[in-house]
This record gives sequence, C-alpha cells and structure tokens, in this order.
Amino acid sequence: MKDTATMYIPTLADMLVAHERIRPHIHRTPVLTSSFLNGLTGAELFFKCENFQKAAAFKVRGASNAVFGLDEAAAAKGVATHSSGNHALSLAYAAGRRGIPCHVVMPRTAPQAKKDAVIGYGGRITECEPSTSSREEVFARIEAETGADFVHPYNDPRVMAGQGTCSKELIEQVPGLDAVIAPIGGGGMVSGTCLTLSHLAPDVRIYAAEPEQADDAARSFRAGHIIADDAPQTVADGLKVPLKELTWHFVQRHVSDILTAGEQEIVDAMRLIWARMKIVMEPSSAVPLAAILKNREVFAGKRVGVIVTGGNVDLDRLPWMNG
Amino acid sequence: MKDTATMYIPTLADMLVAHERIRPHIHRTPVLTSSFLNGLTGAELFFKCENFQKAAAFKVRGASNAVFGLDEAAAAKGVATHSSGNHALSLAYAAGRRGIPCHVVMPRTAPQAKKDAVIGYGGRITECEPSTSSREEVFARIEAETGADFVHPYNDPRVMAGQGTCSKELIEQVPGLDAVIAPIGGGGMVSGTCLTLSHLAPDVRIYAAEPEQADDAARSFRAGHIIADDAPQTVADGLKVPLKELTWHFVQRHVSDILTAGEQEIVDAMRLIWARMKIVMEPSSAVPLAAILKNREVFAGKRVGVIVTGGNVDLDRLPWMNG
Repeated sequence: MKDTATMYIPTLADMLVAHERIRPHIHRTPVLTSSFLNGLTGAELFFKCENFQKAAAFKVRGASNAVFGLDEAAAAKGVATHSSGNHALSLAYAAGRRGIPCHVVMPRTAPQAKKDAVIGYGGRITECEPSTSSREEVFARIEAETGADFVHPYNDPRVMAGQGTCSKELIEQVPGLDAVIAPIGGGGMVSGTCLTLSHLAPDVRIYAAEPEQADDAARSFRAGHIIADDAPQTVADGLKVPLKELTWHFVQRHVSDILTAGEQEIVDAMRLIWARMKIVMEPSSAVPLAAILKNREVFAGKRVGVIVTGGNVDLDRLPWMNG
Repeated sequence: MKDTATMYIPTLADMLVAHERIRPHIHRTPVLTSSFLNGLTGAELFFKCENFQKAAAFKVRGASNAVFGLDEAAAAKGVATHSSGNHALSLAYAAGRRGIPCHVVMPRTAPQAKKDAVIGYGGRITECEPSTSSREEVFARIEAETGADFVHPYNDPRVMAGQGTCSKELIEQVPGLDAVIAPIGGGGMVSGTCLTLSHLAPDVRIYAAEPEQADDAARSFRAGHIIADDAPQTVADGLKVPLKELTWHFVQRHVSDILTAGEQEIVDAMRLIWARMKIVMEPSSAVPLAAILKNREVFAGKRVGVIVTGGNVDLDRLPWMNG
C-alpha cells in the first residue's frame, strides 16, 4: 500500500500549500467560548468548532488535500480507503467535490447509518467481513481493479498536512494561546497540530487527550515507542486506532503530555458541552474537556485552544441515555 | 400591574438606546448557514443563533434592557416576573449582572430543572399553585412586599425594544435579506422584529411561524383581533402564550403572514437542524424551518433570516425519542 509515500515527513510548506488548496472546499470554522466552562476550569478555553466543518469532521481537511492534490491522471482513477468513520465520509465528500470516484471498504456489520452517510456523499461502498484479513484482501482487490489512490485515514503526509491547517486557523483567530489540546487516536490531528505549531507558534504547548480505555498513545508516549492495543472499547469511538510511524514522528517530538479520562468523565464532559455551549459534538471531541477538568492545575490561568474534532453522533443513542 | 406603562408604544429610538445599553451584557450571536438546508428548501437561509445567547435565549435582550434601564432607586428594589420559561432565566441573569434581586413566581409543579436554572442565575423563587388565580395572588403579594418592578415576558415596551436588537444585528450581519421568519408565541420577538425592520429595512418581509396546535396568533391575524386559546398543547412549549395589546399592535401592522406547522413537522425540523447544523436548540426554534419546508414556494430563491430563539432543552427527553 505505497509504503514509500508514507515515509515522507510533511513540512510547513506542505501545510501552507494544503491550506491554499483546500480553502474553497472547507469552512474556516468559528471559535466559541463559554464563560461557564471558563469558570468551571479556571482556564480561558477557546473551542475550535470542527463539528461545524464540512462533513462535520476535521478529517475533511486532510481528505481534501489528498484529493485536490492529485494530478488529472491519478484523479481520474479515484481514491480509496478503508474506514467506517469520519475519514470515509470526508474522503467521499472531497471526491464528490472534485467529481471523482471514492471507494470505501467497510465491514458489512457497520451501522447502516454510517453506510448511508458515505453513500449520501457519493461514496461507493464495498463490504468486507469484520476482520483485518478480509478487509485487507477486499481492499487490495479494489485497489488493483480501480487503480484508485489509497488515502490512509491518518498515516499519510497529505492528510497530516491538511489536518495542520486547523491549528493554523486557530492561532490566527486567537492570539496569545498558551496551549492547544486535541483528542488523539491515530494521531492525525495531533501530528498536524505539531507540524504547524512547532514552526508558527513554538511556545504553545501541545497536549493530547485520550480515553483511559484506549490509552495506547499515552503508553506509547511514556514507553518511547509505539504500542498498539487490540480492539480497545470506548464511547469515544473515533479514538480506538493506534499511532503509526508518521504520526508518532511528530507526537514524540512535540507533544508536552498525553492526558487520559475515564468513560463517565468523557460522557459528563460531552453532556456539559451540549448543555452549556449548545453544540452537537461527538464523544471523541469531549475527551479534551474531560482531561482539562481532571488536570485543572495544568491549565488554570492559561489560554487554551480546544479542538472540537467532529459532530457525527447518533441522535437516537446519546451516551448519557444508556442503561 | 402597571397598565399605564404597557400602553407606551416603543420606538426606533428606544430600540437603538436598548442596543447600546445591553451591548456589554449580551452576545452578538453568530449567523450560521447550511448548504444542505439551502438545497432542501431552495432558499438561502441565514440562522441567527440566539441559542448561543447568554442564558441561551433571545429573551435576555429584553430582560437586560428592562433591568439596566431602571434608575438606582427602582433597581434597588429589584425586578419580578411570573414565568417558568426562558424569560425567568433571562431576567434572573440580567438582575444578577446588575447585582439586584430578581423575584420569580413559578407554579410548584414546574420542573425542578427549570427552578434550578433560575436559582443558578441567582433568582429567588416563590412557588404558587398551578392556577391563574394563585399565580396572580402570590405575584401581587411579592410585588407589594418588595416594591420590585414587574417585567412582563413580552407585553412591555422595554422588553420589545430589547428583542428588536436581534434583527438589527441580523441585517448588519447579512445584507440584502428578502425576508425574516421567527416563531411567535406572545409576540415579543416578532413585534421587536417589526419595530426594527419597519424602520431600518422596510423591504424585508416579516413572517411568523406557529405550531398548528397553538395557532392563536394565526387566527388572530386572520380575524383582525386578538384570540387567546385556553391551555394549548404543543412540543414547542415556548409558544403557548397569547398575543397582548402591545405585541398585537406591531404584528397586525407589519407581519406579511403567519405560517403554521404540525407537531411531527416541528420535531422533524428540530432533528434536521441538530443533525445537519450541529447546534442544540429548543423545539420552539424549529417551527420556522418547519414552516419554510411546508411553504417552499413562499421562500424559494429568497435570502431568508431565520431566528433561532433559544437552546434550553432537556437533553434527557428529546422529542424524537418519545414513545
């Protein structure tokens, strides 16, 4: 799957080019504040609302950069990925904007709502069995048949450069930040944030926030090498995937700390944001606030950018309604 | 209850003074758009998001104008109202900002969450029995004991001038609107909109949207005089109250039409806004979109401001989860 491409470390120039490239296709999302949450945390929080982004996910930044960076010949063959989450939606959205095919390999057991959303954006779904071997086999076949360009959900320099445009906007919108915190799964958003801030705002400390029940990144960070968990379970379902070599490259160099929060703390933080900020966002996006509330001393008195990564949630099954 | 005060018709100057007066205490709320909803309706919709307002309700505009317009002697005695909805919250918020007492008479049967919210903003609740006679009796006693200034939820020129600041911001934020639509209950927001637009943007058509099951304003509009319903039932619980003489004065002169929508249409529109715009708003605020979807021909091809009036909703009991 094009390992050579994944060895390229994206640069500041790549991120700047990405921002110009994707600008017509994304929202410059607003930054919201809440005096209630400031009071509660003792920090000054600036929420960068990627839940208002196209496809309701920051991942449309990286996906758009990959799609619109293809030359005409490659673009004609389309793009392909395996994902049942926001990356699939985002890649389908971006491919649709360019008018090229987007092939998505998804387990047949994925929720129908997720399949419908991909199809709604014009994606073409090929189902596989819910196993890694089936997914790889089916994906290899699709790739061979179509010649489509594989866009990995995060371990791809084009994707990482695209995600880095989010924190570029954030520091333009909010001067004088002391810190930025984002959720971490595979590390696409966090590595993009590292790429951007290490060059443009090196004094801003970068924190990652992770569910305790999927704390492979935190353990990797302490161990000094990538640790991958086998099928972790968490309400923050966007954060189950492990770091990969490219994202790890940035995480190990530029992240100040990786903070974790428990399941109930994540759900409570999510509900608090809905109730107080009146925005719809997904469980993964609540992990940073949960981590801030659990580590008040780290953030008290600081100006903190909080990346709200997405808003794709099942409105019929909100996590505080379980049981 | 100070009938002389309620006979004064607020003017453009009152609205302009109100905006200067309340500016430090309110948010200039953002305007959001959705390409999906534009596609669905054939109109260009601009959502003025008062769900992001202080106390999550436009009513904080009128309440703040009343509270901060009091002279020192009157202010020292505080303000009072009877309401179990957003007006009570908003008045408590505004009084808290000024550091004066706010007395709220509420039925003892009102949900504890509503009582807690008023108390959270520093309001002082006096409970009455759930009947008009008990409410009037208890309110008269509180007024006599405290000398507090009565601020009616809508039939008060100070409140109406305050609500008019919302559409002033909207036409500053979005040039070239063809129409504005807002929900109508007692008519506070709609009359304020009429006050402002009839002077500052007389070509903008003003529509009101109302639940079919509480369509007293629509029937009043057609009859040419105020019709009040006895205890209507609708999911849009902010819209159950009847027009009064001051709000009627503006509604009958400046509103182009009052459009209605059914209960399921309101719930569907609410869910659509949550799912697509990723904002939390209350059922009353969904009535305009429901009315637009039901009357596409009125709005197709037009630039339409849609006032999202508030975001106070019980996250444990979302209306699409009934049954």
